Amino acid sequence: MKTLIKNVLLLPMTSEEDLLEKGDILIEDNRISKVGKFYLDCELDLIIDGEGMLAMPGLINSHTHLGMSLMRNYADDLSLMDWLENKIWPLESYLEAEDVYWGALLNMMELIKTGTTSFVDMYFYMDEVAKAAEKLGMRGVITRGLVAFSDPEEKSIEETRALFKRWNGKAGDKLRVMVAPHAPYTCPRPYMEKVLKLADELNCPIHIHLSETEDEVKKSVEEVGLTPIEYMANMGLLNHHVVAAHCVHITDREIDLVKGKSFYPINNPTSNLKLASGFAPVSKMLSQGINVALGTDGASSNNHTNMWEEVHLASILNKAVDKDPTSVRAYEALKMATVNGAKAMNQIDDLGTLEVGKKADIILIDIDVLHMRPHHRLISSLAYCAQGSDVNTVIIDGEIVLRNHQFVNVDEREVIDNVEKRTRKLLERAGLEYREGVISE
Amino acid sequence: MKTLIKNVLLLPMTSEEDLLEKGDILIEDNRISKVGKFYLDCELDLIIDGEGMLAMPGLINSHTHLGMSLMRNYADDLSLMDWLENKIWPLESYLEAEDVYWGALLNMMELIKTGTTSFVDMYFYMDEVAKAAEKLGMRGVITRGLVAFSDPEEKSIEETRALFKRWNGKAGDKLRVMVAPHAPYTCPRPYMEKVLKLADELNCPIHIHLSETEDEVKKSVEEVGLTPIEYMANMGLLNHHVVAAHCVHITDREIDLVKGKSFYPINNPTSNLKLASGFAPVSKMLSQGINVALGTDGASSNNHTNMWEEVHLASILNKAVDKDPTSVRAYEALKMATVNGAKAMNQIDDLGTLEVGKKADIILIDIDVLHMRPHHRLISSLAYCAQGSDVNTVIIDGEIVLRNHQFVNVDEREVIDNVEKRTRKLLERAGLEYREGVISE
Repeated sequence: MKTLIKNVLLLPMTSEEDLLEKGDILIEDNRISKVGKFYLDCELDLIIDGEGMLAMPGLINSHTHLGMSLMRNYADDLSLMDWLENKIWPLESYLEAEDVYWGALLNMMELIKTGTTSFVDMYFYMDEVAKAAEKLGMRGVITRGLVAFSDPEEKSIEETRALFKRWNGKAGDKLRVMVAPHAPYTCPRPYMEKVLKLADELNCPIHIHLSETEDEVKKSVEEVGLTPIEYMANMGLLNHHVVAAHCVHITDREIDLVKGKSFYPINNPTSNLKLASGFAPVSKMLSQGINVALGTDGASSNNHTNMWEEVHLASILNKAVDKDPTSVRAYEALKMATVNGAKAMNQIDDLGTLEVGKKADIILIDIDVLHMRPHHRLISSLAYCAQGSDVNTVIIDGEIVLRNHQFVNVDEREVIDNVEKRTRKLLERAGLEYREGVISE
Repeated sequence: MKTLIKNVLLLPMTSEEDLLEKGDILIEDNRISKVGKFYLDCELDLIIDGEGMLAMPGLINSHTHLGMSLMRNYADDLSLMDWLENKIWPLESYLEAEDVYWGALLNMMELIKTGTTSFVDMYFYMDEVAKAAEKLGMRGVITRGLVAFSDPEEKSIEETRALFKRWNGKAGDKLRVMVAPHAPYTCPRPYMEKVLKLADELNCPIHIHLSETEDEVKKSVEEVGLTPIEYMANMGLLNHHVVAAHCVHITDREIDLVKGKSFYPINNPTSNLKLASGFAPVSKMLSQGINVALGTDGASSNNHTNMWEEVHLASILNKAVDKDPTSVRAYEALKMATVNGAKAMNQIDDLGTLEVGKKADIILIDIDVLHMRPHHRLISSLAYCAQGSDVNTVIIDGEIVLRNHQFVNVDEREVIDNVEKRTRKLLERAGLEYREGVISE
């Protein structure tokens, strides 16, 4: 299969110094075989006219919980414990596998529609997440969140092992599996040590929540005499490739500790604001050469999962936090959502830029729109003005999954209807009603 | 003219306690004559089917600089003084009246397309802004920014007087004029006193920038021994209706001072982050009963002018600032963009809610979209998930200006082409080139 995208403005994300130029992209099977201005010496199966559009690497959502989307907009504006104990956990305990399938499918569709081609997910019923990704042709890392108190017989550890065998490298290598201890405070040391051993056994990276809240850090110091990242380093975490969600309260000492290691903090600005977790020291980490990537966190604590809003926020928020308007420039924010995400996924050789030999995860963005006019500095237009709805076409692994804002492989109506049906049933099982006078037949 | 919007989910913004219900809205000429469930006893000129949509009051952008949009995305990620002195001011000095017309038109179209029906603007060549608003059928407050150093002969003060006579209450009362001293630091006391006198003479409100940066507050204390708002209060500002842009660094003493007065702080969260101005004490002001409204600021310092992003940011940002996830709830953020904006505009009797007798400024939002599903608590969906592109229909003063995402009165292509043409000419006059290798033929 040979596809040509022609006459498109190219943002390869390979260097900030390059000027944006118009050119073509040739895709052969699932990889980019030419990019820029070139002589075409083969017959084509498909031509996409890129006029009025910009091509860039697909965005990477490096931390999310796709299966939670049935609980999106269910409860907000509450204190963390009220929200968890009285709203989320009671409902979550009634979730069935099929709920996770439809919820993940809905959420992945939102991701694709707004230009995200890869995700790193953590939840349970992860086979369902894998199936949904396969259905859509989406790329992702699936991880089974491991929590000691809900896993007394260590069945979930066994689940991860099985998940790895079943899905790692499958769906044309679009799916990968990592080992996911939920957090130091939910995995006491003996359990955590077993989990780290599993990562050794499977020779795969780790996905974990670290230093999300002030309280977590305080309790860690009280209980084990170390901050969470120090504590985990002490347990050997830094010998692994680590996708470390949040790191809002990472200390200077911890920054020194993780620098130069395969440690990938994932900044989730919307979630960190909405849950009042705080402001991560993003530019401090970036300036130390630490590869900070971006994520949306789950749909229950955001509540969109539109990576453009995270890019936008990463660029503007850190300026105010640092009291410096030159902090986290437009290009850096875009890099967090592409190149840095590919590194966090441990797939930088295949993803993150538009280069010959890389896998064809490409998005085409309508730039001939009111809110990006006039066309001065398009890097600014992307970071500060672009909307999810500007994403016109999404190609994953060489396959078109969204064309002219429409899905190719899936019926949007059917998914919405099933999500609503499953949500009603979930509430029913939990003995609850649809809240706040709401809507729709 | 009688228009019926039928079968629409109603969010009147009159009370947080109400449940959302489906109903109809009858518009007679430019006012809402019935809302809810009612018996229809008249013939209709037009029926709009609101199925799958939510109706709410049009959003109000309470502080912007529409004429600056030709400089959007022209220069970003720079220190404030570098940005102003080396980028914005040199270009601004070459702006012609027609540039402001096309720039304001473009910007108003972005506002309308994303659900904003009214603006409070401050700039120069304000006749052009008025003409653009008239062309689109948009509602707004136009104000001529007054700066002493560029107004040695006080011609701009005279311009405001003429502007008031020409436009206040015109275009079917859609246009109003206020007096706009730019800021205390650009209007030395004798000049400022003349400006305040003009507001007395015209009996009209004042639009001003106050306490935007730490530096401004520091210098004010050094120079006049008072913080900016204390200083202005001392000059009699609080005897007027005041639209006070920013108030990022308003002090507790100043909060006490303005409480109970006709003082309307306008929070511009994106601009305050992007320019590293800081975090306004929004919830502290709200809890004191101060009417904080929302604005986008100008397109050069944001760079979108999409009020949904401000609503979203107002709700999430203040939670982190206050370390309290219950701070600035979804409904409060929506109120800032509607009811509070109408109060800031001094038009709460006519605008800000969907109620019988009010002017028909109504937006219809597509809620049957992926990213708002499932439909739990729609107030959350609006504040945390809604996108500008979800706005389907916009009615201003009873007139449809946007229908099914398309403009009724204006050719989008023509406006974009003219904006690009004027931008090129502007750069040419300034001896500059289009920057960063950019695009389009």
